[in-house]
Amino acid sequence: MRQITSGELKNAPISRLQEVCETVRREIFQTVSVRGGHLASNLGAVELTVALHRVFDFPRDKIVFDVGHQCYAHKLLSDRAETFDTLRSRGGISGFPKRGESEYDCYETGHAGTAISAALGIAKARDLKGEDFSVIALVGDGSFNNGLIYEALNSLKILSTNILIVLNDNGMSISPTVGGTHEVLSELKEGAAPLEDVALFERYGLKYFGICNGNDLEELLPAMEKAKEALQKTSVLLHVTTRKGQGYAFCEQRPDRTHGISPAHPGKEYSAALGEELTELAQTDGRIVAVTAAMTDSLGLRPFFRAFPERAFDVGICEEHACVLSAALAAEGMRPYYAIYSTFLQRAYDEIIHDVCGQNLPVTFCIDRAGITGADGETHQGVFDLSYLAPVPNLTIAIPKNIAEFRAMLRLSASYGAPLAIRYPREGEEGTCESVEIGKFEVLQSNLSDIIIYAAGERCIKLASRVLSAAQEKGVCATLVNARFLKPVDEPFLLSRKEKYVVTIEDNVLSGGLGDAIARVLRGTGQIVRSFGCKDTFIPHGTVTELADEFGPNFRDILDYLLSCHAC
Amino acid sequence: MRQITSGELKNAPISRLQEVCETVRREIFQTVSVRGGHLASNLGAVELTVALHRVFDFPRDKIVFDVGHQCYAHKLLSDRAETFDTLRSRGGISGFPKRGESEYDCYETGHAGTAISAALGIAKARDLKGEDFSVIALVGDGSFNNGLIYEALNSLKILSTNILIVLNDNGMSISPTVGGTHEVLSELKEGAAPLEDVALFERYGLKYFGICNGNDLEELLPAMEKAKEALQKTSVLLHVTTRKGQGYAFCEQRPDRTHGISPAHPGKEYSAALGEELTELAQTDGRIVAVTAAMTDSLGLRPFFRAFPERAFDVGICEEHACVLSAALAAEGMRPYYAIYSTFLQRAYDEIIHDVCGQNLPVTFCIDRAGITGADGETHQGVFDLSYLAPVPNLTIAIPKNIAEFRAMLRLSASYGAPLAIRYPREGEEGTCESVEIGKFEVLQSNLSDIIIYAAGERCIKLASRVLSAAQEKGVCATLVNARFLKPVDEPFLLSRKEKYVVTIEDNVLSGGLGDAIARVLRGTGQIVRSFGCKDTFIPHGTVTELADEFGPNFRDILDYLLSCHAC
Repeated sequence: MRQITSGELKNAPISRLQEVCETVRREIFQTVSVRGGHLASNLGAVELTVALHRVFDFPRDKIVFDVGHQCYAHKLLSDRAETFDTLRSRGGISGFPKRGESEYDCYETGHAGTAISAALGIAKARDLKGEDFSVIALVGDGSFNNGLIYEALNSLKILSTNILIVLNDNGMSISPTVGGTHEVLSELKEGAAPLEDVALFERYGLKYFGICNGNDLEELLPAMEKAKEALQKTSVLLHVTTRKGQGYAFCEQRPDRTHGISPAHPGKEYSAALGEELTELAQTDGRIVAVTAAMTDSLGLRPFFRAFPERAFDVGICEEHACVLSAALAAEGMRPYYAIYSTFLQRAYDEIIHDVCGQNLPVTFCIDRAGITGADGETHQGVFDLSYLAPVPNLTIAIPKNIAEFRAMLRLSASYGAPLAIRYPREGEEGTCESVEIGKFEVLQSNLSDIIIYAAGERCIKLASRVLSAAQEKGVCATLVNARFLKPVDEPFLLSRKEKYVVTIEDNVLSGGLGDAIARVLRGTGQIVRSFGCKDTFIPHGTVTELADEFGPNFRDILDYLLSCHAC
Repeated sequence: MRQITSGELKNAPISRLQEVCETVRREIFQTVSVRGGHLASNLGAVELTVALHRVFDFPRDKIVFDVGHQCYAHKLLSDRAETFDTLRSRGGISGFPKRGESEYDCYETGHAGTAISAALGIAKARDLKGEDFSVIALVGDGSFNNGLIYEALNSLKILSTNILIVLNDNGMSISPTVGGTHEVLSELKEGAAPLEDVALFERYGLKYFGICNGNDLEELLPAMEKAKEALQKTSVLLHVTTRKGQGYAFCEQRPDRTHGISPAHPGKEYSAALGEELTELAQTDGRIVAVTAAMTDSLGLRPFFRAFPERAFDVGICEEHACVLSAALAAEGMRPYYAIYSTFLQRAYDEIIHDVCGQNLPVTFCIDRAGITGADGETHQGVFDLSYLAPVPNLTIAIPKNIAEFRAMLRLSASYGAPLAIRYPREGEEGTCESVEIGKFEVLQSNLSDIIIYAAGERCIKLASRVLSAAQEKGVCATLVNARFLKPVDEPFLLSRKEKYVVTIEDNVLSGGLGDAIARVLRGTGQIVRSFGCKDTFIPHGTVTELADEFGPNFRDILDYLLSCHAC
């Protein structure tokens, strides 16, 4: 779409701004239809973004997008209209704010709840430097469940600096927003009990402006102007309601299904297997409960939630709380399954150590979206989990080779009385699985050779198979092993093998991953361990295939190495 | 002290209970005087604990202590009166709740903010199992700054189970409690604006009872009875004020200084050097700011806070927010120093990745209490930081050999434009330092030998020196290297050395630590790398020396290995 200049927005009548909204909305819909991305959240925030660009002066003024998945209109209205159709493709526009992409993006986000803290830091730096501009945090109501938001609100008076918080209230996280905070916001919306809640915000040092229809420019623009004026003297909360998916009937009706759109996936989803197996297991095991932080559907838990509503807990975007809750349920004899994306589990790291593993409690972590995840980029890759989980005492770490093995691991977990992490990618193949025993590797292809390959997880095992086929054509063969437990690693098996060349393959960074664990066991044996994993860098957006080739363990490097071993 | 039975407490007149309080208080004071431990917090909570034991029926009813540092009276009143004088000593009573120690301890804590989540999990499990008992979370007002508390409050209605939250409000974290939440609580205490705040708690599903003097049994017992009765139908918040240090004048006057008492330390504290250097650097560099999560004094930051109050931020017990705030300050050109204990930095793991390193921002993490820390036990050891930090891209990790080198690293950091972590123990020696260059190791003792030792940090380097002296007496010598950067590791140096035997020593678990990093570089060279570090287990309480000997890299094992290398 053509770049709309800031001058155009500043001087246009409201009718022209409404046209701009329609143009922006159409561009978002068309691009996301092709490229995938966050749809409903961006459609809902179009008028809000137009109003922000009309009233404020970017990039002098600065805006932090909480989560960052609602920044498409901002990208179109600042300086990326002409390249927006490259959204989420390798080398193209990111689906999240990126400092390197534009001076209009002042702070990067991807996970929930950071925007108010970030806005406070930017505003405080401004004050210390004696500069003068406005700082805005745009935050969805889903993030208002997250603890970080309250830590930041608590700091408003400590830091004594002024920021504008725009609360974009659409009643949704990826799932509908839940809990007490949501009720406070709802009552504000209904005008049922405004006094106390307004007082609450004001106690934290926020002047409250609300409620205002965030999809109606006639209502929104004057409210935004008032908020801007008040910002000269105080921090401000502008409470705006928007309709997630606004403008497209299907999105409005099913905002949960249109939160994120992916291009068609050929594979079967691991998450579906999680829902099936857990529901099955829970029929006969009354101890099984499921816990999620606002991602019931994406994690495949819907069937479980339907079958056992009293044993299924969606606590909102509260990754830490969900972890402690799971630990305590386990302490009292339940068997909690805490399902979460790899990247978001980072938020619960202290609780994994302090609550679950410190007490050696039988919580099963179902870690979805592990490895390189693709189009969401840096903040969503799951390439650190093996490294940060392996050092934690008492934790068993399993990495299934396919969906059938994932199912077997889940069945095993029900009778396993200690902390267990199972990490798996979004999609794969059902495949088959004979049996799984904790800490035991499995030989997949046995060959008389001086090379043995240990690969973990479906993508890496498939990669190893392809490399082996190519190597065999050149006369090099190797034994291939499914290294399905990182911890405990299969030490007896490792020490029983005498191959001179040991190759490890994992879709995780190398520090503290599978390669290090295997090499640690083999030190002193004289065997040569060579590890292939993800590069020590933040992996940007692109397709999983192209990113894996560029940043992950890749076909060419492994093949070259195998051929060079033979040459020795 | 003699064990006071539950029956005695249940039937005694208030005058007798008051005597019990004095006995308990005296026992705590005497034991802590000898053993060290948390003093002021425990003295303040004596009447509160007596009242809880009078009104509730432990261990049938269950109590979770937030942070856990105020559980001494509970230990004395349940079943540990006769062994309490072993407090915090190896094999003795822990300073924190421990499930393995007594059935009266139902859930383990050590870090702030977990108690309400844990109480909810226990209560929900109770409901699902059809059992009937009361669940209590005892939470200090300092923890009410922490985000986890709000995540848990948000879940009260979602989980629809009843718990009693006792808010022990003494106006203090380790430092005085700060921020908006503190003001809400203060106004409640002053009766200034009770209506709205009570309404707030009730919106979350909590019936509010307050304010009640928690050091006065006459006032406390009826309030506790009322709370217990209400708990049959709803969750309850009982707001109690106590005086930290109650009963001992010096503790009452200086609760910040008597929060934790340590037996005399012979060494100099690294934290003092942090305060001195930062204050010095900030005189000429206006970009330098300091951030702490409620630990100004323990981290040595008091001189900086005095000299530059406008550039010093104590945000309360908000480790995550402190990290994002630091990132945003850095994004706008400031140079934040975020000082924190190793174990508490785990709480900010996602923000280290997502906010600081993802954006490659020049935040310096000053990581105190790294390595084995001693008497606080499992929840306070700093033995995971190298493992969880090493996999993070863009991060430099430095480990000074002494306080002088720590100072040099701090001076270096001021001109270093990327994320930097410096990890150090509580105490050590000033020593000397010639110069430091990012990523460069330093040879400390050079010997013609087939053994080279890489040690990181003061304790490990000293250990290596002692081992080397002993080995030399038996005719074995080795080169000793100060491996002061884990990342980037000094690859050119490592590859330039040809010693057959490579020994690494670190006070961190082995997975993903220094040994793994060095071995990864040396794979394929034929050199034999043997690593000594902390065992893969949660390290309990004891003195640093005895724990290091039992769970850390130790003299005997390393010496045996050096002698065996020579024998080869």
